[in-house]
Amino acid sequence: MAEITVVKIGGNVVDNPVALEHFAADFAALPGRKILIHGGGKEATRLSARLDIPTTMIEGRRVTSAETLDVVTMVYAGLVNKRVVASLQTHGCNALGLSGVDGCLIPAVRRSPVPVDYGFVGDINPDNVNAGFIGSLLNAGIVPVFCALAYDREASTLLNCNADSVASAVAIAASRLATTSLTYCFEKDGVMADVENPGSLITSITPSSFAELKADGTVNGGMLPKITNAIAAVKSGLECVRICRSDMLLSDRGTTITVPADEAEC
Amino acid sequence: MAEITVVKIGGNVVDNPVALEHFAADFAALPGRKILIHGGGKEATRLSARLDIPTTMIEGRRVTSAETLDVVTMVYAGLVNKRVVASLQTHGCNALGLSGVDGCLIPAVRRSPVPVDYGFVGDINPDNVNAGFIGSLLNAGIVPVFCALAYDREASTLLNCNADSVASAVAIAASRLATTSLTYCFEKDGVMADVENPGSLITSITPSSFAELKADGTVNGGMLPKITNAIAAVKSGLECVRICRSDMLLSDRGTTITVPADEAEC
Repeated sequence: MAEITVVKIGGNVVDNPVALEHFAADFAALPGRKILIHGGGKEATRLSARLDIPTTMIEGRRVTSAETLDVVTMVYAGLVNKRVVASLQTHGCNALGLSGVDGCLIPAVRRSPVPVDYGFVGDINPDNVNAGFIGSLLNAGIVPVFCALAYDREASTLLNCNADSVASAVAIAASRLATTSLTYCFEKDGVMADVENPGSLITSITPSSFAELKADGTVNGGMLPKITNAIAAVKSGLECVRICRSDMLLSDRGTTITVPADEAEC
Repeated sequence: MAEITVVKIGGNVVDNPVALEHFAADFAALPGRKILIHGGGKEATRLSARLDIPTTMIEGRRVTSAETLDVVTMVYAGLVNKRVVASLQTHGCNALGLSGVDGCLIPAVRRSPVPVDYGFVGDINPDNVNAGFIGSLLNAGIVPVFCALAYDREASTLLNCNADSVASAVAIAASRLATTSLTYCFEKDGVMADVENPGSLITSITPSSFAELKADGTVNGGMLPKITNAIAAVKSGLECVRICRSDMLLSDRGTTITVPADEAEC
C-alpha cells in the first residue's frame, strides 16, 4: 500500500455541500500521509458571470486574462480552498490550504501563446515541485490542500493550471519521498466500456490494454488524455493511479492504472 | 532586539501596487524570523459593490453576513493574500499564505449578537493560537503571511476578524516562543500630537504618558483603542509595539509603545 495518498476532487464535490461533507469524512478517515488537490471551475465561471467577465474555454481549458486570473485566485485560493480546509478540519483532519506560490511550492512556466494564447496559464515540471517542503509538512502531521494555481517567479505572477495536472505533478514529486498513489475522484464509477451500462466498469488498465481499448474505440474523448497522463505519471514513479467516484474513496473500486514491469517500455 | 518581528499592513499598502512593491522589498530585508498580517477591507468593499452586496460598517467593523463572509474569504484569503505572498516571494522572502483555518492556527469564537450582531465576526484568545506550529514554520525558514480570518471549529466556519486584533493575538502567541515585537504600519508617521503638524510625532508612549495624553486630549478618536490595545499586548508579553508609516519599516522611526517595569501595574 502506498505511503502517501494524493487525491484530486473536482467540481462535483466542491460545488455540493452534501458531497463535500461526505468526501471530507472519508478523506479524513484515509490512513497515512495524504495530500488533496481540488478544482473549482464552475464556481469561477459563476463569479465571472456575476462580474460580467466573459468566460472563454478552449478544449476544456480556461483562457485566463488578468481579470480572470483575479477571479480564479479569489475562488480557488480563497472561497473553495478555505471551504474544503474548514470541512476537513471539522472532521479532525489537520488540513492546511496552499497555492503554488506559497512557499514557492509549485513553480510553473507560462504556456507559449502559440498556437493558442491561454493567457495566465502555466505548465508544471514535477521536478520543480518543492517535494522537500511538502515532506516536512506531511511529517508534521499536516495535510496539504492545494488549489490549482502555480507560480511564475520570473514574472511574479500566479498562473492558472489544470487541477488534474497539478495533482499529477504533486504526486510525482511526492513519489520521490515515499511510495505514492494518486486517485482522481470524478462523477463516474471509473473508466466505463459502455457509458450507458453501469456494469461495464474497466477495473484495470495497463499500457498494453489501453492500446487495445483505444484501437477498438472503447475509450475515447476526454478519457484518452486522462489515461495517457495517468500512464505517464505511473511511469514517472507513482505506484498506481485510480479513477473512481468520490464516494468510493475508502474502497478499492474504480479503475486502477498500473504499469507492470514487463510493460514499462510500452 | 526582538527575535520575532510581527508586522501588520493595511489597505494603504495592499491596495497600491507601488507601495506593496516597496514594502515587500523592505519586509524581505528585515533580519530574523518574521510574520506578516494584512488587511484588505477596501478591496472587499469594492468586490461587494460589484456583486450588489451591501456593505454595513458599525464603528469601523464590517457586519459580515454569509455572503459577505464569502466575499472576504475570496478577497482576504485569495486575492490579497496571494498577491502579497507573490510579491514577497519575488523579493526572495519565503512567504506562505495562511488563514486561521489552515492548520487550525487561529481558533476564534463568534462574537455575541448582543448588543450588536456583527454576523460572522470572531474574537481571538491569544492563548488558543497554535504558537507551536507557527514556531515550526518559522524554524523551517518560512514567513507566515496571515489574512484576518479565524476559524470557529464548533460551527465549522471561518470568522471575519479585525486585522489589528489578529496581529496582536499572533504576536502575543509568538512571544511564548521568543522575544517578539509588533509593528503596525499605517498611513501616518506614528501617533501625532497635532495631526496637522508633521513635526509633532510622539516617539514614545508608556502607560503613564498615555494617561496624560488622554487626559489633555492630545490623543483621541481612533488612536485611543489602538494604543490601549498596544499597551495590553505589551503587558501580555510583547517587547514593544511600534506604530509607523509602511515605508519606515527598516528604520526605528514612528511611535514605540513600551511598558517599563515600574509601570507594569498602570
